[in-house]
Amino acid sequence: MIKVGILGATGYAGIELVRMLSQHPYAKISSVVSQSFVGQKISNIYPNLRNIVDNVCEELDAEVISKKCDVVFTALPHGASKTVIPQLIQAGLKVIDLSGDFRYNDISVYEKWYQTKHDHPELLKMAVYGLPELHRDKIAASPLIGNPGCYTTCSILGLAPLLADKVIATDNIIIDAKSGVSGAGRGLALDYHFCECTENMKAYKVATHRHTSEIEQELSIIANEEIFISFTPHLVPMKRGIISTIYANLKQEYETAELLNIYKNYYKDEFFIRIYDEGQLPETNHVTGSNFVDIGLVVDTRLNRVVIVSVIDNLIKGAAGQAIQNMNIMFGLDEKTGLTSPGLYL
Amino acid sequence: MIKVGILGATGYAGIELVRMLSQHPYAKISSVVSQSFVGQKISNIYPNLRNIVDNVCEELDAEVISKKCDVVFTALPHGASKTVIPQLIQAGLKVIDLSGDFRYNDISVYEKWYQTKHDHPELLKMAVYGLPELHRDKIAASPLIGNPGCYTTCSILGLAPLLADKVIATDNIIIDAKSGVSGAGRGLALDYHFCECTENMKAYKVATHRHTSEIEQELSIIANEEIFISFTPHLVPMKRGIISTIYANLKQEYETAELLNIYKNYYKDEFFIRIYDEGQLPETNHVTGSNFVDIGLVVDTRLNRVVIVSVIDNLIKGAAGQAIQNMNIMFGLDEKTGLTSPGLYL
Amino acid sequence: MIKVGILGATGYAGIELVRMLSQHPYAKISSVVSQSFVGQKISNIYPNLRNIVDNVCEELDAEVISKKCDVVFTALPHGASKTVIPQLIQAGLKVIDLSGDFRYNDISVYEKWYQTKHDHPELLKMAVYGLPELHRDKIAASPLIGNPGCYTTCSILGLAPLLADKVIATDNIIIDAKSGVSGAGRGLALDYHFCECTENMKAYKVATHRHTSEIEQELSIIANEEIFISFTPHLVPMKRGIISTIYANLKQEYETAELLNIYKNYYKDEFFIRIYDEGQLPETNHVTGSNFVDIGLVVDTRLNRVVIVSVIDNLIKGAAGQAIQNMNIMFGLDEKTGLTSPGLYL
Amino acid sequence: MIKVGILGATGYAGIELVRMLSQHPYAKISSVVSQSFVGQKISNIYPNLRNIVDNVCEELDAEVISKKCDVVFTALPHGASKTVIPQLIQAGLKVIDLSGDFRYNDISVYEKWYQTKHDHPELLKMAVYGLPELHRDKIAASPLIGNPGCYTTCSILGLAPLLADKVIATDNIIIDAKSGVSGAGRGLALDYHFCECTENMKAYKVATHRHTSEIEQELSIIANEEIFISFTPHLVPMKRGIISTIYANLKQEYETAELLNIYKNYYKDEFFIRIYDEGQLPETNHVTGSNFVDIGLVVDTRLNRVVIVSVIDNLIKGAAGQAIQNMNIMFGLDEKTGLTSPGLYL
Repeated sequence: MIKVGILGATGYAGIELVRMLSQHPYAKISSVVSQSFVGQKISNIYPNLRNIVDNVCEELDAEVISKKCDVVFTALPHGASKTVIPQLIQAGLKVIDLSGDFRYNDISVYEKWYQTKHDHPELLKMAVYGLPELHRDKIAASPLIGNPGCYTTCSILGLAPLLADKVIATDNIIIDAKSGVSGAGRGLALDYHFCECTENMKAYKVATHRHTSEIEQELSIIANEEIFISFTPHLVPMKRGIISTIYANLKQEYETAELLNIYKNYYKDEFFIRIYDEGQLPETNHVTGSNFVDIGLVVDTRLNRVVIVSVIDNLIKGAAGQAIQNMNIMFGLDEKTGLTSPGLYL
Repeated sequence: MIKVGILGATGYAGIELVRMLSQHPYAKISSVVSQSFVGQKISNIYPNLRNIVDNVCEELDAEVISKKCDVVFTALPHGASKTVIPQLIQAGLKVIDLSGDFRYNDISVYEKWYQTKHDHPELLKMAVYGLPELHRDKIAASPLIGNPGCYTTCSILGLAPLLADKVIATDNIIIDAKSGVSGAGRGLALDYHFCECTENMKAYKVATHRHTSEIEQELSIIANEEIFISFTPHLVPMKRGIISTIYANLKQEYETAELLNIYKNYYKDEFFIRIYDEGQLPETNHVTGSNFVDIGLVVDTRLNRVVIVSVIDNLIKGAAGQAIQNMNIMFGLDEKTGLTSPGLYL
Repeated sequence: MIKVGILGATGYAGIELVRMLSQHPYAKISSVVSQSFVGQKISNIYPNLRNIVDNVCEELDAEVISKKCDVVFTALPHGASKTVIPQLIQAGLKVIDLSGDFRYNDISVYEKWYQTKHDHPELLKMAVYGLPELHRDKIAASPLIGNPGCYTTCSILGLAPLLADKVIATDNIIIDAKSGVSGAGRGLALDYHFCECTENMKAYKVATHRHTSEIEQELSIIANEEIFISFTPHLVPMKRGIISTIYANLKQEYETAELLNIYKNYYKDEFFIRIYDEGQLPETNHVTGSNFVDIGLVVDTRLNRVVIVSVIDNLIKGAAGQAIQNMNIMFGLDEKTGLTSPGLYL
Repeated sequence: MIKVGILGATGYAGIELVRMLSQHPYAKISSVVSQSFVGQKISNIYPNLRNIVDNVCEELDAEVISKKCDVVFTALPHGASKTVIPQLIQAGLKVIDLSGDFRYNDISVYEKWYQTKHDHPELLKMAVYGLPELHRDKIAASPLIGNPGCYTTCSILGLAPLLADKVIATDNIIIDAKSGVSGAGRGLALDYHFCECTENMKAYKVATHRHTSEIEQELSIIANEEIFISFTPHLVPMKRGIISTIYANLKQEYETAELLNIYKNYYKDEFFIRIYDEGQLPETNHVTGSNFVDIGLVVDTRLNRVVIVSVIDNLIKGAAGQAIQNMNIMFGLDEKTGLTSPGLYL
């Protein structure tokens, strides 16, 4: 059994890790850390877990954790991860970090978009961007994974085949993304107060959202040229789910079916990516509760433009599920282990 | 492996069976029957299932099913079950029926509340009411189970200990129940049109809902006297979840903690029933996605009355999960098999 | 024109007053007070009001307000009202208070349920409980109105005719009430965080909610005997609306239609109360956005018990609309002035 | 008083007309027509209207209507309007049609996008596109108005100033629009079943939605050149509200504030259009329940691209409110009459 620790276990990404790992056949939750609830059973905070996971929340003590765990998931706010992870790595643990701190190849991009200094360039260099569909081999070989953001996972995987095959112009890529509210986490703010966000929809952080830089980093690698994109996130009155609607101009004429074939071929070995047939498009509730990425597209022949629709569950493929997928790879397990539950739909 | 068939597989209870059975370690879905979608993959109707359950929907043919299955779940409308089940039973299959057709000990009660003739009194006699916490032994011994209704499961289990222990007066029991919309199923009706039921709440079938008779049957057995109750169902703008708020007058003075102890003792061997400590009450999202029944209560000492709050996921403990629990019992498996997933909470 | 001031204008009850008074033909908003947003336009906080109400939020200064206003609505937290209202009354203003501070005939009841000392018994004596359907004449004659709570309005009006006519037993009255989330106000708390309350339902403050005492006070007056009730509030995932489901035992046999006639007769001159015909029941979206109270009922002849369903919009008839209705009475206007907008339904 | 008739009064656009016209100081509802509910009070179908609008639904009889009305709103399905409107026009009535039948300058565009023959080219020629902010004078002079679609109103007004001022390139305009479910109307379909659309989001009719052609027609007029756009509608789990997120490339460098000034200047006399200051963006609940269009924008200087966010209430400025605005203009009233109610926000 893999002994796992979860830091930030009572946040929304953390508790999703706890829930999913409790069902993983080869993982054992050895330590749940939550500074706000030290000494309390995690099933008191989240009563759904009672009789399933009744671990007591611990303080953050890297030394203690190192002794109890083989791998640690850090689901801490951006910035907080950086202070604890060096000790964990030094103690020989594998670390999967769900913050933005270890997702960047270029430290200056991080420092610009996060408006903070990064104190551990040596770790950043060692870290691998944890998108298995793109970096599976490197993930297997590294002790430190920067688990991708939710919007980014949905958007990058939705675009990768067209950039890899040089099908689209790279100067007019527009990603209009919409997310359920759980992406904002458990922290209180008026924007996420029920009466303020139910029956309401809005765009936010237009042209300035940090995930833009993550998306650009990965798309540039795939395209082998520097890519810039428009990225606009929106808040939708639902709990889970992200839908990215992506627009790009085609370099030459294509039929919808041709592009779908490019996707099916590119992702032919990927269990978690499902490409839709012509005439069908994914909806967020097709993936709610699962680790799948569902992708469909339409070529607008009038305009020689493609519109791609990509959906994920932001808490699973956009956070906890992907982190477990990374863990599976790091420990040589079948990548799908513990992740084959279909979505709930209802 | 137990070979299972699901009749009415594309309804909401049916598809929940499909989803949950796809994760059951000792069950294999051999046949999915849906008259409306014969010849189509069930994962075309519910794309969340793609690559997990891709069975093709079949016509209803008892003979074919009998050859392929060990047990059949019938998730058909009330009345429809009665015509197919006799053939299945005759062919030696075990049958778990999710309709109201085989839930009654007294045929006249059924015929009164369902306003229809019951053509198979001999099967009704053989059938067992499938509430494992009350009738586990009989379930193990019978080939035909009448799986309880959603409101009834939530309400009966919420009241059983107090009636068994003769703690409450039996002439003033009031059950005010509230359900998410999935309980109404997949059939179209203006009442379940999104714009008509979001941001809206209502009572319906006041004093006439059929589940009243089921609740009264079971409570009468427990109390060993004829029990009549007020039962009022309400529709709430959420997908899953039932909450029953139950009022009863105490025969003598009790403290909240005393009554909770009665519950804890009564249900001490029941994995799926979780009794809350004093000062805490269950909410529907504590059980969403799981087979648990969560129960809390408060004694109103001013009035010498107890208020009990009982919650379930109507599609799981109120339908598919309970049906699988029954299957486990019928086949001698650990009752919890395939049912230990905690609720989603989020 | 009546010059009105609104204290606590940026809370949910306060802003509903602002919105509704902006459409009142004989009222002019002279002062909006909000300690948190002094100096900001109220339409910056609630952009829906832009170009309609652009008043600047002021500090709470009783002297200043007294000069600018004829009547003041105090939509402040319980306790806060008591400190400012004496000055306003002394300055000769009429005051309509939306807190619980001036709703009680008996100071000891207030002090028991609110667990605080009431420093102004003389004002409490002068104050009138602002439920126009019961106390219209007294409201017209008093400068200080204690505007009723939301649950109370819905529940009292739903029961009054049966108690006035001595139709029901008074020892087994049960009020099971369900409210949308706006009743909890604009203050942040995890319970009202979107992801915690959407797709969720719960009971809270069972047997201890303060509105119990208000309901009992008014029902006792109507019945001319001391009445005690069970009152259980629930939180429902919608913004507006309260539904009270009320249970009472009949003293003798009645038909549904007979009781409905008692209601129709009792409320025959009440514009804001609509009694449903037999076979129909109100839903919360019948009154969303309006000042109406809609009431229906069913006699359960099996049990000789009546089940009454009463609905209001908690922010309107349960707060701002009722307060304006009181203002109309206090100033000798037609009670319906500014309040004849039908509900939105959609 | 203007005597108005409403055809299709029990659909969602129709009933919103009824609700809003009941509050219009110079309009009197003389006739409500609903084929499905002939002989029933409209307040039986929509109980929110009881005691406010209790008209009885009539059959569709052009002759009868002509005698009772000065103006008729036709809120009928596309295609149905064409058969009744000629008679109404011939009888000298003014007609405001909410279908797509009379929105086009070029009959061939209509016939291509609606895949049907248009039998009344002479009426189409006489009809005026009822977007007052663009065609106020023509509306005043015509007896037949083609009331714009909901998506179109939101999108055209969001883009008009930039095209009029030739600020943006015309070959890469992308409109990503999201709508609440009421836009789909009252007709039953699985897509709008509560359990299928709550907690779910999807794109639909990608590259083929009819409103594309309406948007292109109007933008082409403003730009004085042929404009083609990408338009993608999405369904969002809320009742009311549309948000259009619009992307366009700037011809030269601009600051956000400069473009906002262009909007403020272009719309300086428009009561119903509110331009946001830099740093603020509209949300759908800023306009829910009102006739306002709220617009904000951000220049992405990295990409020299502008992102515009435009919101309306689809049932008001996108249907009933705009239709009443047109009526006001046609009858020489102040355009704002009956339309100054602020949004609900809550």
